[in-house]
Order: sequence, then C-alpha cells, then structure tokens
Amino acid sequence: MKFKLVLSFLLLTTCFVAFGQEQQSGNSKNQNASVSEKGLIKISIMYPFAEGKTFNMEYYETKHMPMVAGFLGSNLVKYTIEKGLSNGIPDQPLQYMAIGTFYVKSLSDYKAAVAPHRDAIRADFVNYTNTIPLIFVSEVVK
Amino acid sequence: MKFKLVLSFLLLTTCFVAFGQEQQSGNSKNQNASVSEKGLIKISIMYPFAEGKTFNMEYYETKHMPMVAGFLGSNLVKYTIEKGLSNGIPDQPLQYMAIGTFYVKSLSDYKAAVAPHRDAIRADFVNYTNTIPLIFVSEVVK
Repeated sequence: MKFKLVLSFLLLTTCFVAFGQEQQSGNSKNQNASVSEKGLIKISIMYPFAEGKTFNMEYYETKHMPMVAGFLGSNLVKYTIEKGLSNGIPDQPLQYMAIGTFYVKSLSDYKAAVAPHRDAIRADFVNYTNTIPLIFVSEVVK
Repeated sequence: MKFKLVLSFLLLTTCFVAFGQEQQSGNSKNQNASVSEKGLIKISIMYPFAEGKTFNMEYYETKHMPMVAGFLGSNLVKYTIEKGLSNGIPDQPLQYMAIGTFYVKSLSDYKAAVAPHRDAIRADFVNYTNTIPLIFVSEVVK
C-alpha cells in the first residue's frame, strides 16, 4: 500500500514537472510572438554617403545610439544599426554609410521624449560623423 | 529491495523528464538567439516618393514580396515591409512610399537566386507601382 502511494506520488510529480516545463515553453513562445514588429513605428536616421564623408561606427554603436535610446523609455521596443555596404544597382554609388533605427510604439511620444535633448543629440554628431543625417519615418506593415 | 529499485527508477525518470524539458527550453532559447539579426545582410528595395507616383501595398504584400521570397530558399531569414509615413525633418517631402527588405545570410547566394527571375520580378512592378525602386545593401551591426 505504502509502495503504491509512493509510486502514485512520483508519477504525479513526473507529470507535474513535465507539464510545468511545457507551460514555461509555451509562455516563452507567446513572449516571442508579442515581439512582432507589425504596427510599430520606425524612425530611421540615415547618414548619406559622399566623397570625404566619414562615420565612426564604434562611437555610434557604443555611445551615440545608447544615449538616444536612453531618452525613449518604454516607448522604445528595440533599436538596430546597419552599415551600408553597396548600392544594389551596379555602378551606382552607395546611398548611406549607416542607418540607425528606433522601433517605437508611438511617434508623438518619441518626438516628446527627444525634443528636450535635441541640442545634446546634435552636438554629439561631430564625435562620429561629418555628414548630416536624414530622418525617415515609416510603419511596419509586415 | 524491489521497492528501492522502483523508487530509484522513478526518481531518475523524473529527473530525465525535467532535464529533457529544460534542454528543450534551452534549445528554443538558442533558436531565438540565432534569429538575432546581427551579421545578416539586408537587401532593401526602396520605392521613392514623388508627385503622381503610386504604390499598391496590398498587391505588394500579398503577391510581389511572397513571389520574390519564394526564390530565395533557406538563404532568406525573414523579410519585412514598411510603409513610408513622413520625412522626420519638418517641411521636407517623404523619401520613400514603401520599403521591402530581405534579410539573408549571403549576398552572393541572393544574387544567384534572383538572377534567373529578374525579368519576372521587373515585369511585376507595373502591377503595383509606377516608380522605379532603388536597392540598398547593408549589414546588420546591431
């Protein structure tokens, strides 16, 4: 009798452990699904390439972008940095040396958060580039 | 003695089940980490905005992009579509009506996969736009 009780207890424990892990696994899948970018607003800061223009990617990645990201709070879902490689059309010049992109939930919240720091952000440009960036605002469709 | 053996066996089973699930959970985490975009190549097809230019997002999303994506096989990690909203600098015109982006592992594999279908891809343009796209190739840094 005691043996059967212990057996049942252990079988139940096994089931609960397995089920618990299964649940955890399910939750982590849901969390990933909620990170879908659809509907988010992208603010892309694009640094045009031209003869004589320079861009310090290391400074941009380790100092400038983290500084701006720090102003955005929970409105910021993620940010990305890309390095321009080439124009996809042969014999055409590279369009951008680099693009930094903030994925945010609200454009107006982004503007409100950045406004008080505009001078500090612009003053930092000379530390990594001598080009003037363009800003493109878009919405993630897919 | 028999009881102790069964007990040990069940304890071991419990541990293995727990460990197995833990492993699975760990693997799924690794899979997510491997979906990190860092190091991937982005091929961004950018449709410039200008007076009188049109873009049919529904056709682009449901027909054109899936067609091209279908040519890319396992080299394609993901693709995104964004809709241009505004120029981030006040009183400046919108730069792009739309951008479609393929995230691939290898640029040369992308070129090789697309080359035999170039005519079909270009012939489809008139079905959703009257603008000529630009192509920007970049590498995800972060």
